[in-house]
Amino acid sequence: MAKQKEKLKVIPLGGLGEVGKNMTIFEYKNDIIIVDSGLRFPDDDMYGIDMVIPDLSYIIKNRNKIRGIVLTHGHEDHIGALPYLLKEVNVPVYATKLTLGLVENKLKEHGILRNSNLKVVKAKDVIQIGEFSVEFIHVSHSIADSVALAIKCEVATVVHTGDFKIDYTPIDNKVMDLHRLAELGKEGVTLLMADSTNVERPGYSMSESTVGQTFLELFRGVTSRIIVATFASNIHRVQQIINAAIHYNRKVVVSGRSMVNIVSVAEELGYINIPDGVLIDLNDIKKYPDEQLVIITTGSQGEPMSGLSRMSISEHKKVEISKGDLVIISATPIPGNEKSISQVINQLYKLGANVIYSKLADVHVSGHACQEELKLIHTLIRPKYFLPVHGEYRMLMQHAQLAESLGMPQENIFIGEIGSVLEVNRDFAKINGKVQSGQTLVDGLGVGDVGNIVLRDRKHLSQDGLFIVVVSLDKEKGKVVAGPDVISRGFVYVRESGNLIEEAKAVVRQALTKCEESQVTDWSTIKGAIRDTLRQFLYEKTKRKPMILPIIMEV
Amino acid sequence: MAKQKEKLKVIPLGGLGEVGKNMTIFEYKNDIIIVDSGLRFPDDDMYGIDMVIPDLSYIIKNRNKIRGIVLTHGHEDHIGALPYLLKEVNVPVYATKLTLGLVENKLKEHGILRNSNLKVVKAKDVIQIGEFSVEFIHVSHSIADSVALAIKCEVATVVHTGDFKIDYTPIDNKVMDLHRLAELGKEGVTLLMADSTNVERPGYSMSESTVGQTFLELFRGVTSRIIVATFASNIHRVQQIINAAIHYNRKVVVSGRSMVNIVSVAEELGYINIPDGVLIDLNDIKKYPDEQLVIITTGSQGEPMSGLSRMSISEHKKVEISKGDLVIISATPIPGNEKSISQVINQLYKLGANVIYSKLADVHVSGHACQEELKLIHTLIRPKYFLPVHGEYRMLMQHAQLAESLGMPQENIFIGEIGSVLEVNRDFAKINGKVQSGQTLVDGLGVGDVGNIVLRDRKHLSQDGLFIVVVSLDKEKGKVVAGPDVISRGFVYVRESGNLIEEAKAVVRQALTKCEESQVTDWSTIKGAIRDTLRQFLYEKTKRKPMILPIIMEV
Repeated sequence: MAKQKEKLKVIPLGGLGEVGKNMTIFEYKNDIIIVDSGLRFPDDDMYGIDMVIPDLSYIIKNRNKIRGIVLTHGHEDHIGALPYLLKEVNVPVYATKLTLGLVENKLKEHGILRNSNLKVVKAKDVIQIGEFSVEFIHVSHSIADSVALAIKCEVATVVHTGDFKIDYTPIDNKVMDLHRLAELGKEGVTLLMADSTNVERPGYSMSESTVGQTFLELFRGVTSRIIVATFASNIHRVQQIINAAIHYNRKVVVSGRSMVNIVSVAEELGYINIPDGVLIDLNDIKKYPDEQLVIITTGSQGEPMSGLSRMSISEHKKVEISKGDLVIISATPIPGNEKSISQVINQLYKLGANVIYSKLADVHVSGHACQEELKLIHTLIRPKYFLPVHGEYRMLMQHAQLAESLGMPQENIFIGEIGSVLEVNRDFAKINGKVQSGQTLVDGLGVGDVGNIVLRDRKHLSQDGLFIVVVSLDKEKGKVVAGPDVISRGFVYVRESGNLIEEAKAVVRQALTKCEESQVTDWSTIKGAIRDTLRQFLYEKTKRKPMILPIIMEV
Repeated sequence: MAKQKEKLKVIPLGGLGEVGKNMTIFEYKNDIIIVDSGLRFPDDDMYGIDMVIPDLSYIIKNRNKIRGIVLTHGHEDHIGALPYLLKEVNVPVYATKLTLGLVENKLKEHGILRNSNLKVVKAKDVIQIGEFSVEFIHVSHSIADSVALAIKCEVATVVHTGDFKIDYTPIDNKVMDLHRLAELGKEGVTLLMADSTNVERPGYSMSESTVGQTFLELFRGVTSRIIVATFASNIHRVQQIINAAIHYNRKVVVSGRSMVNIVSVAEELGYINIPDGVLIDLNDIKKYPDEQLVIITTGSQGEPMSGLSRMSISEHKKVEISKGDLVIISATPIPGNEKSISQVINQLYKLGANVIYSKLADVHVSGHACQEELKLIHTLIRPKYFLPVHGEYRMLMQHAQLAESLGMPQENIFIGEIGSVLEVNRDFAKINGKVQSGQTLVDGLGVGDVGNIVLRDRKHLSQDGLFIVVVSLDKEKGKVVAGPDVISRGFVYVRESGNLIEEAKAVVRQALTKCEESQVTDWSTIKGAIRDTLRQFLYEKTKRKPMILPIIMEV
C-alpha cells in the first residue's frame, strides 16, 4: 500500500483551452515521457508569426528525466513542434510507421534527422520506457496509422485516446480496437484522457467510406477533367479519390508539394494502393483527354500557395482551369479559413469550373468522435477519473457534462489547463499546482524572440502605419541644424495628403522652439514633446493614430 | 414602338461579386435613382480600414441627373454609405419609417441631418421620382419594415426584391406581399433582381417565430439571470425575447449602445411593444433578484467593444457574469467572426455561465430566402429577364442555375458585376459596357486616401516590422558625421536580439565605406546600398524581411 502514496503526474503543456499544440507530460518518480509535440497555427492578431509551439521550459528544466517521446499520429498539431523539442532533448521517439515517415521529412528539413532516434512501433505493441509501459491501440482518424495509448506505471493506468473517431467501415478495414479498450475497462482504468474536438456535435460522425460513395456519384457521367482538393495527410481520402478514378478509367495526377510528399511516403510504406499505370506525371497531362484525368491537389483550406489556389488565379504552371472542369473541394473550412476558401471557389467559378464543396454535397466527414461515439468510449473504458483534452474551454466543459450524464461523479472529473499538474493514483486524483507553460512564437528562424511588445508594435503599425520625424541637433548648443524631416509609411498617400506633411513639420518646429525657449535639452523630453504634439495634430486631422517615431541625431 | 428603342440602364455599383455595400443605379433618359447605399466590412488584409463603400465616381459625374435615393431596409449593408453619398449629392431619400429612424441617427452622427431631405413612405405606396415610379412592397427580413421595389419607367418594369425571406408566421403578422408580386407577375415584369445570399441552402428558411418557441423552452424553469445577445437591428427577435421575459414574469434590461438606440427608435415608432413596467434601467438591476431578470445586449458576433464581450472579460460596468447565469447567443457567426465568438463563449464558460449558442440549440434563423423560397418568387414574378444580385460570384451563378432550372432561357439571365451596364426594355436586355466602379476605403476621417500602397506598407509592417537606419552626412564632403543609428519596431526584442543590432550597424558602415570609396554621392544610390546589404544580412540571420528605411540627414 505504500506504493499508492506515490503519484503519477499528468501535466498537459498544450491542447487544453485551445485547439492545437497538443503535448502532455507523464511523470512518475524520476522518469518523464512526453506524449505528442504539436504546433498551433497563429491567431489573427499574431502578426507575422509562422507557428505557435508549447512553452518547453518545464521540459528543459527536467531535461535529464525525459526518457522518450510518444506520438499518437502524424498531424501537425501532434508532431509540428517535434523539431524544436528534439533540439532541446534528444530522446527516442516512438510512433507508428506512417507517423514516423512524416516526422522524418520534417526532421530532414530542420537538418536533425541524422542525430535523431526514431523507433517504429505498431498497434498492439507494448513498450517499456523507464517507469512506464506504453501500449499502442489502433484508432480511426483522418490520417492513417493513428493510435490511442494505454500508459501504465505502478500506481495508475491511463488511457489517452489521441484524436479518434469510430468508423465501422474504414477504408483499411481496420476498425478501432474496441475489444482492447473494453478489456482495459475490465482490468480497470485509473484515468481517461479523451478528445473533445467534436463534443458539441450530437450523434455519430459519418464513416469515411461515405465520402467514397459521394465521389462515385459525382464522377458519374462527367466528361470533363476532375480536380479534387483535400488534406494531403488524409491518405484514406486520397485512396478513395484514386479508387473512384480507377472505377471510371481515369488516370491520376498528384499536384502540390505536400500532396506529392505524403502520397509518396504513404505509397512507399504501403498505406496507399495505386495500381501500376494509374499514376501519371503532371508534365504528361496534355497527353490524355480531359475525360481520362483526375488531378488530386492541395488547397482545400484556400491556402495562398497551394495547388488549388494557384489554379484559381491561373498561376499554376501545369494546370489551367477551363470551362466545364469539375472541381471538388473535399473538406470543410477550419474556423478562420472561410473567407479564403470562399474566394478560391468564386475564382474557380469565374474561370468556368463547376465547383462542388461541403455546402453543396457530402464531400467530407470529420475525423473526430461526436457525442454518441464519446459515450461509447466512456462506457467501455469506465475510468475512475476523467480529464477531457483537445479542446477549447467550452468543449472541455461540455465533455465533462457528457461524462457526468453517464454517471461519473463530478468530483472525479477535472477541467485542466495547460501547466496544471494532475496528481493521480488508483485511489486519488487532484489538480495540485502548476508548472510554467504557455506558448512560444516561431517567426522565421526566431523561436521565442517575438513577444508581446513586438506583436503590439506590429499591430499598431498595421492599423495606422508610421510617422517618422528626424531632427539633427548641434551637440554643444542643442540647436536644430537640420530637419525636421518627415517620413511616413502606411499612414496616408502623400499625394492625397495635401498639406498634411508640411503642417506636421510646422507643428514639430513649434514644439522644438518651445523646448529651446524653455531650455529643455534632455532628449527624451524633446522626443516626448514631438510625439505628443504630433499625435494630437494627426488625430485631429485624420482620426488616426500612427506610430510616431521621433529621431534625434546629434552632430 | 419608337419608345422601345429607349432603354433603361441598370448599373449595380455594389453587392455583386461580394456580400455588402449594396447599391444600384437606375438610369432612364435624363433621370437617375439610386437604390440602397450600403457599406461592407473590410477584408482581413485591409489593415486599419474602418469600412468599405462603393466608388461613387459615376454618381458624382452624373450628379445633376440624380433624382432620389430609395432604401429597401435599415441594415448597414444597405444604408451604411448614405452619409458619404449625401455629402456628394443631396437629393431626397425615400424609405419606410424604421429605416429612416435608423438613417436619422446615422446622419446626426455625421452632422448632416439638418440638410437632408428624408421622405417617409410605407408599403403599397407608389411614388413618382422623375421618369420613374417606385412602388414599395412589404417583405419579411431580419429587420422590420423591409420592402421590395417595383420600379417602372416607360420601357420596363423591374422588381428588386431587396433582402427578403418568406415567413408565413412573422412576428408582426404581416406576411410578405405575395399577392402584389403575383399581380405584378401577371401584368408582366421585365427584369427581376433578387437576393442571392442563401441560394446555396436547399429548402426553406425557418420562421422567425420558431426562435420565440426556443426562447420559451430555454427560459422555462431557469432560476438564474438570463442574458440574450442578438443583432440590435433585429427588432422582431428583441420583441420575442421581451415576450418570453414577460411570460416568465421577468423584467427586461437593455444594454449596449446600439441596442439601446435601436430599441428606443423602434419603440418610439411603434415597431416594438413593451408593456409598462417591463423595462427597467440598467442601473436598477441590483434591485431585482436574478430569476426576475432578462438582459438583452449586443455582441452576438464577438465584437470587441460590445456588451457581451465586455461581460465575458469582466469589464462590463453594470453586469458581472456569475456562476449559473444563462447566456443565449441568438445569432450564427458571420464568416470571419467565428474565432472571436468562440473566444467570448469560452470566457463566459470560465466565469461559470451556461452558454447556449447556435451549435447547441435553434436560437437563430436566417433572414434570407433559401432555394425553395427563391423558386416561389421566380415563379410568381415570372420575369422576362433575370439579374441575380446580393452575392459573391458563385452565388450569382447558382442563382442563375436555379432560374434556368425553372425554365428561364439562359440568354435571358445576366451575371453582372459592379459597374456593368445592363440595358433593358420589354423586348431586349444586354450587358453593354462598364462604368467606373469599385471600392473606396474609409479610415478615420479619410475617405479614399488609403489605397493599395498604404495597405501594402501596413501589411509589410505587420508581418516583420520595421528597421530604420539614420546617418548624418556632411553636406559638402559627403562624409559620415554621425550614425549609423538603428531603430527597430515590431522586428525583434532588442533584449533577445543579441549582437544583431551591432552587427547590422557594422554592415551599414561597410556599405557606407564602399560608397565613399567608389565616390558615390547620390543619396538614392547610398540608400539603395544600405537597404540591399541590410535586407540580405537580416534575412540570413532571421529569415525575416522587415521594412528597411534608410534615412540620410545632411548637415
